[in-house]
Amino acid sequence: MQMINLIEKKRDGLPLDADEIRFFIHEYTAGSIPDYQAAALLMAITLNGMTRAETVQLTLAMAESGDLLDLSDISNYAVDKHSSGGVGDKTTLVVLPLVASFGVPIAKMSGRGLGFGGGTLDKLESISGFDVNLSESEFRRIARETGMVLAGQSKSLAPADGLLYALRDVTGTVPSRPLIASSIMSKKLAAGANGIVLDVKLGCGAFMKTRAEARDLAKIMVQIGVDAGRDMAALLSDMNQPLGVAVGNALEVVEAVETLQGGGPADLRAHCIEVAAHMLRLAGRGERFADMADNRGQLAQQLDTGAGMQPLLRMVAAQGGDVAQIIDVSRLPKARLRAELKARETGAITAIFADKVGWATLALGAGRATKTDAIDHAVGIEVHANVGDQVAAGDRLMTVHANDDHKLASAMALLDEAVATSGGTVARLPLFHGVIYGAEGTISPSTTV
Amino acid sequence: MQMINLIEKKRDGLPLDADEIRFFIHEYTAGSIPDYQAAALLMAITLNGMTRAETVQLTLAMAESGDLLDLSDISNYAVDKHSSGGVGDKTTLVVLPLVASFGVPIAKMSGRGLGFGGGTLDKLESISGFDVNLSESEFRRIARETGMVLAGQSKSLAPADGLLYALRDVTGTVPSRPLIASSIMSKKLAAGANGIVLDVKLGCGAFMKTRAEARDLAKIMVQIGVDAGRDMAALLSDMNQPLGVAVGNALEVVEAVETLQGGGPADLRAHCIEVAAHMLRLAGRGERFADMADNRGQLAQQLDTGAGMQPLLRMVAAQGGDVAQIIDVSRLPKARLRAELKARETGAITAIFADKVGWATLALGAGRATKTDAIDHAVGIEVHANVGDQVAAGDRLMTVHANDDHKLASAMALLDEAVATSGGTVARLPLFHGVIYGAEGTISPSTTV
Repeated sequence: MQMINLIEKKRDGLPLDADEIRFFIHEYTAGSIPDYQAAALLMAITLNGMTRAETVQLTLAMAESGDLLDLSDISNYAVDKHSSGGVGDKTTLVVLPLVASFGVPIAKMSGRGLGFGGGTLDKLESISGFDVNLSESEFRRIARETGMVLAGQSKSLAPADGLLYALRDVTGTVPSRPLIASSIMSKKLAAGANGIVLDVKLGCGAFMKTRAEARDLAKIMVQIGVDAGRDMAALLSDMNQPLGVAVGNALEVVEAVETLQGGGPADLRAHCIEVAAHMLRLAGRGERFADMADNRGQLAQQLDTGAGMQPLLRMVAAQGGDVAQIIDVSRLPKARLRAELKARETGAITAIFADKVGWATLALGAGRATKTDAIDHAVGIEVHANVGDQVAAGDRLMTVHANDDHKLASAMALLDEAVATSGGTVARLPLFHGVIYGAEGTISPSTTV
Repeated sequence: MQMINLIEKKRDGLPLDADEIRFFIHEYTAGSIPDYQAAALLMAITLNGMTRAETVQLTLAMAESGDLLDLSDISNYAVDKHSSGGVGDKTTLVVLPLVASFGVPIAKMSGRGLGFGGGTLDKLESISGFDVNLSESEFRRIARETGMVLAGQSKSLAPADGLLYALRDVTGTVPSRPLIASSIMSKKLAAGANGIVLDVKLGCGAFMKTRAEARDLAKIMVQIGVDAGRDMAALLSDMNQPLGVAVGNALEVVEAVETLQGGGPADLRAHCIEVAAHMLRLAGRGERFADMADNRGQLAQQLDTGAGMQPLLRMVAAQGGDVAQIIDVSRLPKARLRAELKARETGAITAIFADKVGWATLALGAGRATKTDAIDHAVGIEVHANVGDQVAAGDRLMTVHANDDHKLASAMALLDEAVATSGGTVARLPLFHGVIYGAEGTISPSTTV
């Protein structure tokens, strides 16, 4: 088999077969296909697309390029979640302990990624001593002993994805939907999940700007999961305005803890309940948690009693974190400077541009522009308003937490255009735009979108 | 300027501006853009195309990536020709001495290339001692002293083309028309020609299979030439059956010499007269050779008197070749083995597949499958029939000249399906399918296609 023939086939709009895709992934991971040939193929895929069968084969080949985690010693049915990422998205910090509090074991590996405001691992690292770099045996031991573990992705998990992602990043081939879907799903499949809940964000603060794009990506990922024998649910959720109030690592940990104790912003609470309800439904496999309304009710109750705090505390302790900072969140890192953004006009809020809030958070130092950037866990932004709120001129809209005057000024400048108001009434934004289901054995995902 | 932004623009179907194209060619030639980024851009160009302005800018940037030959000390108006390559195409060997015999100086650099049966340089190297590797000063001296020189392309001429071609060859980006056109034209522009006649072949023995494809490529090349201030003519010529009788290096030299002495196959003679008439027309710049019918008449006469032999003899002598082999062509290399292909049926010939004859010639060792292959100058095929001829079963169709029994057997097997016959009458193939003109200052090439 010759790589040039694969490139020519895809260039000419023909589908690659399973052997060809396996050849590409295997040989590229082994270093025997040069980057320039892989780049040509990736661009041809970006412009000519991939069929469902090709995308599934690509994902499986990438998953099989390294270790396949077997979680059967931890649970006979592992459930996982993935978020496509958004501004203020601390859902994982709430949902995982909440689900674990129902006796469903959680053993999750997270990627670091680049982004506006740090990923789940960065947020957890706001807690002194918290260690996300676990060996596989530590990972398994903590999962078994505490029912919950959250660690950085092992390098031996889907190594083809890391190699391909680095190449896509410098060759203009990041936005290809089959490549995005296979990148996400290869890691999920390799990480051993039986059931996967995808939280696909759409809007100005997300990678997918429109409902159609997000729905298309979600559908491809559900198809991949179904064809790989997994149970799938994909929620399309709104990311036009930030989720919750807090944006920034330690600020988001505080908000997650408050939510786990029955408080927190209403939108975040509702969002977390919905994601957790789907995880429970998958974990119950038709025997338990089949009734979604009942799940939601039980989850709300568990939040109100603070039961979800226990798995979080156990995990923080097991992974070396300072539990005192979770019990008393005022001990988490705090920024030195504080500034307020105020409403210039009286009226209804028509938009709080999540992307602008995201860029401002990045400017404060809460996220990474390049892989080696250090993160300032204390800085961030609190967004006190939501689309649809009535505000008066001078009302506080945001609080900015900074550790550097220049960065604060940059952030304030970026926030200058982040909120739009108008006269009259403005409808609130929905939390969700639909859900796509897919279960093992179904040919095509059913959808309620 | 960042290469990634160029890739993304072209990926998204947007045109690159002149600065961006110059940046790409300059930095890639300098080695500061990695192959994987160039490969991604080449694939995006292959799939999304290039505008006329982009193609011209690319060609100019490639031409300017190395030395620009100034031929003003040899002629105040240099005329050049280029053939897109075909089976039995020894036109250059006839046309250049013929044009030179009218006092039009010829100083041509040729590429080697891969192909069925060797290029012009390979054919000339059938002559013992003939040296195509001339320094620039030798090249100029011979041109001035003998009125004709034909050498290998200097490595300092359009080096970007060599680098890009090598990358295109392994990344599936050879067939892009803007890339083909800029590759050919960058070398022509750098080689200092003021007027260029393109011989664009079409048919089963050519890279372009259909008239539409060939016309499109020819049009792009004429547009590039016009926009770069050159006078252009592009002939679309038929390459469904081999041109002339001989296919193979020494065999073609013999046939070229016969044609220059008033003999040779009728199709080759007519083809050479047409190409030469266009070269004379350009060289005359409206003051001489403006009447094409008159040009054709003068050229036919010059062939019949053998006047075109003199520049050839002078050039062979000046470049160290054994002139005796041209005066007496029986002294050129001869193959040891000979076999005949005979007609199996009585009828009219409907097709002589030039591509199959080409592959058989390659199998005999007359061409190069890879850059380092050695060429056997003696081997080749004589094709005695033309489409439209009436043949009887047992008539000799081809004579195969070989130096190796196995290679002979391979060639005979490949030729088995090379000729098709049927009952009734069959029309002869045209020599030409049209011509496209373009002169400096015109906005769009005029065309008679």
